[in-house]
Amino acid sequence: MARYDFASDNTAPAAPEAMAALLAANTGFASGYGTDAVSARAADLVRALLDADAEVRFVASGTAANAISLAALCRPFEAVLAHEHAHICTDETGAPGLFGHGLGLVGLPGASGRIDPASLAAPLAAPDVSHRQPVAALSLTNATEYGTVYSAAALSELIAPVKARGYGVHLDGARLANAAVHGFDLKAIQGLGVDILVLGGTKAGMPPTEAVVIFDRALARRFDARLKQGGQLPSKGRFYAAPFIGMLEDGAMFHHAAHANAMATRLAGMMPFSVRHPVEANAVFVEMDDARLAALQADGWFVYRFLDGSVRFMCSWATTEAAVEEMAAALRRIA
Amino acid sequence: MARYDFASDNTAPAAPEAMAALLAANTGFASGYGTDAVSARAADLVRALLDADAEVRFVASGTAANAISLAALCRPFEAVLAHEHAHICTDETGAPGLFGHGLGLVGLPGASGRIDPASLAAPLAAPDVSHRQPVAALSLTNATEYGTVYSAAALSELIAPVKARGYGVHLDGARLANAAVHGFDLKAIQGLGVDILVLGGTKAGMPPTEAVVIFDRALARRFDARLKQGGQLPSKGRFYAAPFIGMLEDGAMFHHAAHANAMATRLAGMMPFSVRHPVEANAVFVEMDDARLAALQADGWFVYRFLDGSVRFMCSWATTEAAVEEMAAALRRIA
Amino acid sequence: MARYDFASDNTAPAAPEAMAALLAANTGFASGYGTDAVSARAADLVRALLDADAEVRFVASGTAANAISLAALCRPFEAVLAHEHAHICTDETGAPGLFGHGLGLVGLPGASGRIDPASLAAPLAAPDVSHRQPVAALSLTNATEYGTVYSAAALSELIAPVKARGYGVHLDGARLANAAVHGFDLKAIQGLGVDILVLGGTKAGMPPTEAVVIFDRALARRFDARLKQGGQLPSKGRFYAAPFIGMLEDGAMFHHAAHANAMATRLAGMMPFSVRHPVEANAVFVEMDDARLAALQADGWFVYRFLDGSVRFMCSWATTEAAVEEMAAALRRIA
Amino acid sequence: MARYDFASDNTAPAAPEAMAALLAANTGFASGYGTDAVSARAADLVRALLDADAEVRFVASGTAANAISLAALCRPFEAVLAHEHAHICTDETGAPGLFGHGLGLVGLPGASGRIDPASLAAPLAAPDVSHRQPVAALSLTNATEYGTVYSAAALSELIAPVKARGYGVHLDGARLANAAVHGFDLKAIQGLGVDILVLGGTKAGMPPTEAVVIFDRALARRFDARLKQGGQLPSKGRFYAAPFIGMLEDGAMFHHAAHANAMATRLAGMMPFSVRHPVEANAVFVEMDDARLAALQADGWFVYRFLDGSVRFMCSWATTEAAVEEMAAALRRIA
Repeated sequence: MARYDFASDNTAPAAPEAMAALLAANTGFASGYGTDAVSARAADLVRALLDADAEVRFVASGTAANAISLAALCRPFEAVLAHEHAHICTDETGAPGLFGHGLGLVGLPGASGRIDPASLAAPLAAPDVSHRQPVAALSLTNATEYGTVYSAAALSELIAPVKARGYGVHLDGARLANAAVHGFDLKAIQGLGVDILVLGGTKAGMPPTEAVVIFDRALARRFDARLKQGGQLPSKGRFYAAPFIGMLEDGAMFHHAAHANAMATRLAGMMPFSVRHPVEANAVFVEMDDARLAALQADGWFVYRFLDGSVRFMCSWATTEAAVEEMAAALRRIA
Repeated sequence: MARYDFASDNTAPAAPEAMAALLAANTGFASGYGTDAVSARAADLVRALLDADAEVRFVASGTAANAISLAALCRPFEAVLAHEHAHICTDETGAPGLFGHGLGLVGLPGASGRIDPASLAAPLAAPDVSHRQPVAALSLTNATEYGTVYSAAALSELIAPVKARGYGVHLDGARLANAAVHGFDLKAIQGLGVDILVLGGTKAGMPPTEAVVIFDRALARRFDARLKQGGQLPSKGRFYAAPFIGMLEDGAMFHHAAHANAMATRLAGMMPFSVRHPVEANAVFVEMDDARLAALQADGWFVYRFLDGSVRFMCSWATTEAAVEEMAAALRRIA
Repeated sequence: MARYDFASDNTAPAAPEAMAALLAANTGFASGYGTDAVSARAADLVRALLDADAEVRFVASGTAANAISLAALCRPFEAVLAHEHAHICTDETGAPGLFGHGLGLVGLPGASGRIDPASLAAPLAAPDVSHRQPVAALSLTNATEYGTVYSAAALSELIAPVKARGYGVHLDGARLANAAVHGFDLKAIQGLGVDILVLGGTKAGMPPTEAVVIFDRALARRFDARLKQGGQLPSKGRFYAAPFIGMLEDGAMFHHAAHANAMATRLAGMMPFSVRHPVEANAVFVEMDDARLAALQADGWFVYRFLDGSVRFMCSWATTEAAVEEMAAALRRIA
Repeated sequence: MARYDFASDNTAPAAPEAMAALLAANTGFASGYGTDAVSARAADLVRALLDADAEVRFVASGTAANAISLAALCRPFEAVLAHEHAHICTDETGAPGLFGHGLGLVGLPGASGRIDPASLAAPLAAPDVSHRQPVAALSLTNATEYGTVYSAAALSELIAPVKARGYGVHLDGARLANAAVHGFDLKAIQGLGVDILVLGGTKAGMPPTEAVVIFDRALARRFDARLKQGGQLPSKGRFYAAPFIGMLEDGAMFHHAAHANAMATRLAGMMPFSVRHPVEANAVFVEMDDARLAALQADGWFVYRFLDGSVRFMCSWATTEAAVEEMAAALRRIA
């Protein structure tokens, strides 16, 4: 039987708190396109979480949310700086180019998914020349694709030179909850200079939903039209807002993220293979040759080789200790 | 208190059968991006419903589903024929142009939302000239925006000359269930020559979900990449597929659509204002001056003036007989 | 033998002054992409002509120049107001949608190609709603597609309410020289609030070239990158700039435009068919049935039926009096 | 005084044969948009040159010609393979993404501008996955950006596996004349499986013009509308076609290219710096430190550091032996 427990954090079902809120919101008639009371309540909770008077929208797709955010920050003949293995660069089928009409992505290096601050210097210093897309924005991801977490200070080091030039900043927070429980202060985000945050719901254990948080109010003008044109202004908005209520009002989102992180740490501790990146969130990346990976997959476990050549094991709110034990046992069998 | 009962069919909550299926699907881990068993089962049900061996995908947004379908049928320098009041022309914020990179929309006239077959002749006969976007596809809507229903014969009359020229056909089925219970044969769609159908879930009483049905298999090549780039390939696909299972396996979708249609017929029968269009699905459009509309709105009922100048009343699976009585009473008070 | 004399003003060859300047510029090596001395000199002449300290670029295509200008003024989820028969709406194959990534065009009515000022009120007053592309700019054309000319006062009446809302204004000046010799004051353009002007060279008797004049300096930021990405930053810029030198430094552009206008007036005076629009520039539009048009075409004269159903006769710098006589004789034969 | 002789091959003026043909074509009225006799004649000459019954169009911009060609071969959710330093990847400001609506570019390595055939294997073997843009086409450049020339055999080795998968092939021939005089057989191009060629006029010594050659006739359907929407269907088409007549009918194009290549070889022979790439066309790339480059520039010579870190010297039809001597002397002074 195929086991998807560690394949991704989006193979998990939705958490009970999210589903309960969904069901609770499913009563009576409500105005459409995010103008309903459920959406208003969820937006308030997001603002409280971030301690920021930001505009908040709830959308279906993280890929679209990221791409639309970049399109709001960067014109087609400009470019966005991002880690070379950022989700927007490698896993979104060129969505930034579609929604951004050909905007450029400039991949930057950096260990374990964190952009090397030194790598910013050259692209930021490059003179505007007509034959090259000049930089207009920086895209960050926290937690990173490699399960590491930027501190606020580390983000500040990256953001400061970008803001100094008047460029925009996007934060992909698909796993922001995992970063938060590792110690990243969510209330620091606005002060750091982030213009648009995509706060992940799906990977945090909700049914599909993401919150787009627009700190820079000037960017919010006509944003609903922008979302609608991009297929991301749901008519039944409460279905995307409600899960955030269930997961935020009593802190379930972070309780679950703490569990996911703990499971990753536990798996790393039992891992008979070399762990490649610091385990700071809910992922474990290990060195494993093709034969052993094939053996593990033949054993029923769906995991795969990542961009850096290591094999990824992803934990979620739903990962059980038993599953970690079973995986560890399977790994020992093939090690 | 604001009453949204008749504002749209997307102000209603999701029907119990859809929600039950959603909850049932929310167990265990599942592979992502529509490759899961729930999505497979739902696709089988859609194929059986249409008696067609088509590719089926479940997406979040009807707007995006329509726009992506048109982009699959029409290149940027070509145009799509559609009723001038079709949703793609008037209510989707130019999404076809965004997803289709500037593709053109040519609005055709026709009473009560149905394209006048005679209006097809001129655009189809127009020679290709370089300064104008030549026709590449026809987009149809059933039930129409005005709550009328095309028969299969009426669609055939529109589709035949389009297919004769090798052009594509898109069917916006946001309210296809309402058309079906009025007598439109869903199993006729493939034979009519439709290439892509967007089968509506949301307005039929589901949480946000739409099924994209690709009859022309050649169009399906790399369609998942197309959807992913467009932000419409949900990682947790089962959340979009499951509602279709709940609504299709015992026919709840049509039971609910029949109720919605019946409520519209009932409201039309009690209507003290002149009804402008035949009531064949779940909408009633009436002649009403601004003062009376304002009075109705002041009474708490959210309804609005539509594109043709009439005022629209929309029924759904959730419209109660009591609400129809209350609305009728409110209308009598202002008539 | 086919006669294209009256088919369009772009069927004419380039005027000797333009060609002489082209040849004069074709000496020695020059820096690329519009940074050369010829481009600088031509830009100075354009600024002097308009009495404006604007940015000026020379590009190959009026279609692209218009579309890129609109993309600079209007985001994809917004719309541009224009006369319903404006070149951008009817003759550019949807280029604004391609370069503007789906931006909307809202066609406004108005006699003889001039927008009816009353028609602006409704779109400008329409509230922003998420399902419709809100207005962001106005596009004007002078001389119009129907050979009529707006006065500065008439333009002001159209522009004032648009600028009052903070929206942008584009002026398609493909036939601006013809408007100027009719009395339109080119030095008034900046004061009227135009943000971007496309000053036509091609139809004015040059080899292919158009000047993009950016009055709003904020729009000029990174404009070269915008042009380059759009295929409109010529490496050998002097070839597009030089013709403007030849045509502007001694006023040949207006001498030729005056001739073109005079030929149109002369043809109108000899016309045995009813002239539909005021002849204020270089075009004559007449009422003619299909049989007579076919007869005229069979006689070798290439002219065609225009959007309003009339038949267009276009004059240019190269239209000779003899040709007007010949055409008049041909028309009398078929009248 | 600034010297642009070696800055690029587009800093040169147009060759006399091209200008003479331009002047010769500038007589009488002609039908527009490439339907004129001059365009027909030039297209015949291109077909004869290539010994191919292809569709030929003349456009203003090589950047746009390349981008539009790629858009014809590759959908937005697909990708094009190209050398990582190909012009489309590094010097066109993301034009492929704009015209191709976000299509992907996958950069491949290879010495001296030629794609390493081994590098094709991985991207061609990669399975289609929804989160990544799958390969749809290969873009080649001959002569390459580094002044080297592919043989027909070398191109065949690259093209064969691509065509075996049914993918398209684009050839950027901005410097095809230089490749031809080095020995590359132009009549082999169609047989190699190239679908679209952009045959460069500008860098070959013409005023701005490029020929788009469509070998695959299926791609040519509605290509004029595609060009028009992209701002590349010139109304006065003869101005882009005529230079090809002047340069092709007596072989001037190749006579001039041979001169340019010879000047590069001569300069390389006198070069006091290490030459990095084989000099097979009209470019010389040398190792030079920043101080010496600055000294050379201070001496008035505009040349610049290229993508691989070497300094590029470009020759053209107009490069004189005297200029080569002067440059060699300048180089000796700073060496």
